[in-house]
Amino acid sequence: MSSTLQKKETMKVPEPTLRRLPWYLSNVKLLKQKGERFVSSTQISKEINIDASQIAKDLSYVNISGRTRVGYEVDTLIAVLEDFLGFTNMHKAFLFGVGSLGGALLRDSGLSHFGLEIVAAFDVKPELVGTTLSGIPIYHSNEFKQKMQEYDVNIGVLTVPIEIAQQITDSMVEGGIKAVWNFTPFRIRVPENIVVQNTSLYAHLAVMFNRLNFNEIK
Amino acid sequence: MSSTLQKKETMKVPEPTLRRLPWYLSNVKLLKQKGERFVSSTQISKEINIDASQIAKDLSYVNISGRTRVGYEVDTLIAVLEDFLGFTNMHKAFLFGVGSLGGALLRDSGLSHFGLEIVAAFDVKPELVGTTLSGIPIYHSNEFKQKMQEYDVNIGVLTVPIEIAQQITDSMVEGGIKAVWNFTPFRIRVPENIVVQNTSLYAHLAVMFNRLNFNEIK
Repeated sequence: MSSTLQKKETMKVPEPTLRRLPWYLSNVKLLKQKGERFVSSTQISKEINIDASQIAKDLSYVNISGRTRVGYEVDTLIAVLEDFLGFTNMHKAFLFGVGSLGGALLRDSGLSHFGLEIVAAFDVKPELVGTTLSGIPIYHSNEFKQKMQEYDVNIGVLTVPIEIAQQITDSMVEGGIKAVWNFTPFRIRVPENIVVQNTSLYAHLAVMFNRLNFNEIK
Repeated sequence: MSSTLQKKETMKVPEPTLRRLPWYLSNVKLLKQKGERFVSSTQISKEINIDASQIAKDLSYVNISGRTRVGYEVDTLIAVLEDFLGFTNMHKAFLFGVGSLGGALLRDSGLSHFGLEIVAAFDVKPELVGTTLSGIPIYHSNEFKQKMQEYDVNIGVLTVPIEIAQQITDSMVEGGIKAVWNFTPFRIRVPENIVVQNTSLYAHLAVMFNRLNFNEIK
């Protein structure tokens, strides 16, 4: 990848745009399966009910240009979007806390199709340490800093109990982790150069339950 | 629950508030473990770096009042928040698509601590149909409407391939599902009285990768 391209691709893209781009990607993949070779933002717009002008604006962040009256070439658009979203470039991660959710994520091989490979996990439970789950080794938490030397990792997946969420985060950052994917319902604090992505399934459940109750009562 | 309380709890609470409330809950749980009996919004504010006035505003949706100079009683605040967020009231759900992510969610018993119980799953793969996973039965997808009669379910968890995401959603809605928890990267369309909660792990990955690259280049 040329460094100009690298620069273009590493612009700080607005989060709403980054969240919509995977919708366009999955939609365009479907159109490809249906035999389409070109797609316009108007076509995507009809399928997923988002303004065509919004779609064109979102796609302007991506290094692709459409042709007048023909639109984007489907194969190119898929390749460019996957690359732009980071799904083609494998990112290695450690997972912290092999409980119910942590174990589930270790078993979810689907993440690797989207650029995330969990290469090792950490826990303190004697019955887990030294074993593997879906082929992924589980080490004792106090081996973390040593393992940072062995593996080329900069992402940490946080699935520990809330009581130790901050402490484990601090230790991750000390060890050189640059991005924390936080699945706990705890709001962790990090230095400003560290990326935090919060994915609280519980917060999403709360929103869904509230909307459901609201619809039932109204 | 009195109907007045029911009404109050089923107000359409702003989504950002609903997403922040679980942070307060986990924080207050920690304070309880440390032996605290009362907590003020200023205290929570210091811990999680959100404006105290925002916290007080968010908590005003919840049926609790603090006492001047003392704050909220910790035990009551936890109980009221858990109830308000729907975590104490078990919601039954069906899961559609026992692939890698679907299987992982069936194994994640943690969801039940937050009010979601997946009572059955559906797939078409002969090697899955008729088996159980973590004690949860897997039925053939064409048995869904019949099973809607047997189980008291109104939530569907969607973890199918994108090619059939819309079709399975349509069938869910036809069968009487009122809320769809969509884990696919596909933007599904539903009638306006149906709740959709999108939780795309892949979109979150895309945001994290972009921010990480941005920090590395800058």
